[in-house]
Amino acid sequence: MSDLESRLDALEAEVHRLRAHQEISRLIASYGPRVDSADNLERSAQLAQMWTEDGIYDIGGVGPKYGRAAIAEAFAEHHFAMVPNGVCHVMGLPFIQVDGERATALNYSCVFRPDGERFYAWRVSANHWSFEYGAEGWRVARRVNRLMRGGEDIQVLLRDIDRMLAQGDRP
Amino acid sequence: MSDLESRLDALEAEVHRLRAHQEISRLIASYGPRVDSADNLERSAQLAQMWTEDGIYDIGGVGPKYGRAAIAEAFAEHHFAMVPNGVCHVMGLPFIQVDGERATALNYSCVFRPDGERFYAWRVSANHWSFEYGAEGWRVARRVNRLMRGGEDIQVLLRDIDRMLAQGDRP
Amino acid sequence: MSDLESRLDALEAEVHRLRAHQEISRLIASYGPRVDSADNLERSAQLAQMWTEDGIYDIGGVGPKYGRAAIAEAFAEHHFAMVPNGVCHVMGLPFIQVDGERATALNYSCVFRPDGERFYAWRVSANHWSFEYGAEGWRVARRVNRLMRGGEDIQVLLRDIDRMLAQGDRP
Repeated sequence: MSDLESRLDALEAEVHRLRAHQEISRLIASYGPRVDSADNLERSAQLAQMWTEDGIYDIGGVGPKYGRAAIAEAFAEHHFAMVPNGVCHVMGLPFIQVDGERATALNYSCVFRPDGERFYAWRVSANHWSFEYGAEGWRVARRVNRLMRGGEDIQVLLRDIDRMLAQGDRP
Repeated sequence: MSDLESRLDALEAEVHRLRAHQEISRLIASYGPRVDSADNLERSAQLAQMWTEDGIYDIGGVGPKYGRAAIAEAFAEHHFAMVPNGVCHVMGLPFIQVDGERATALNYSCVFRPDGERFYAWRVSANHWSFEYGAEGWRVARRVNRLMRGGEDIQVLLRDIDRMLAQGDRP
Repeated sequence: MSDLESRLDALEAEVHRLRAHQEISRLIASYGPRVDSADNLERSAQLAQMWTEDGIYDIGGVGPKYGRAAIAEAFAEHHFAMVPNGVCHVMGLPFIQVDGERATALNYSCVFRPDGERFYAWRVSANHWSFEYGAEGWRVARRVNRLMRGGEDIQVLLRDIDRMLAQGDRP
């Protein structure tokens, strides 16, 4: 193999890695505008396309939802009614680790709601995301969301950062 | 064209796309430090350089400002007086779509102010950004900012995510 | 030098720059999960590995800590006791400037704590980060953290954005 070819190989691998980071960050960033405009089942079904067909959304204080249909329906009970008054899911900076066609991310999310002249932080949560790459691009295989009120499960979730840091990205 | 050349072409196109994402994210991230240190017209005029010469900043609850001079002056009324007491414009993770020398982004912003021993969320807003690439690099052609208090215009703004997701990045 | 070689050179330089941005953003994003799971000296010592061996963490309202050992110990007094009740360090979008094997970043951080059914913003701070690239990758040489309560030192810290914007990234 020529020197030019080996340099191209290395560049392609690195650009592939950077692309995965960018696409996963973008997928996470899409959650806010999608959920805060979801006031009916059609829109929450579109939102559920973020997940794989059999993806899991384990919602803190609510419980796990299995598959796109159940995820879409999870928003029907309380969330749809909040949208007309303003509800705002802000995503914090994600820490992403890529492992071939799988990836993991940790980030915080804060949900703000209006409170007279101000806004208040209704839910502040940690999120542990698992992603898979497939025909539709990167999708969420599992999102575990936990309110930051302390407790052992929060510690288990956050401490996966140790593994993610130790492994680093893998091709 | 040789195989090496076609691989180089593909890499250059992909790196160009990644660069646009990075530069637009950086431009959005520059807003906070710029605005929260703007306590006079000289500094708000520098801040207004984020926009194109005839750029628009449509401020929720205030109204649209047309062009750099009007944008710079918009901060004179209330904002300059807040800076000495601390005002903090935190930018949420942006969702960016690149379309050649134009781009769109959606993100949330939270403005915090001190409140005794704590801080409070004064303004929580959705931002719809339109960018153009020119001689100065990426600049804001239009930023529409709306307080997340609900209402039809919020829904129109957030639902542009559908178009952005469907189109994806374009060269 | 052939045309292919010069194109490869340019691509390698640009990918190197994008990689620096991604790795520094990732380092900043690691702070939250690391600190909010640090309830003992072993974990805060791991957290302190984010800094260079003789790195500085100048904490707003607390004072400067010099070196990894002092940084690790800084969390012992109050922070460890907060972790079991939930404390959440959310990192805002960073503005990063790369200068060879050094880099600078500005971002905001918001620390949320539970407050009955809600959460409140306990600390909202500006952070001025200095990074160095070495055998361990990118590490924090200095982090200056200041509560956003106004004052001259906040203005000095935020106005470094002028230099960062003027210089841009440098190889």
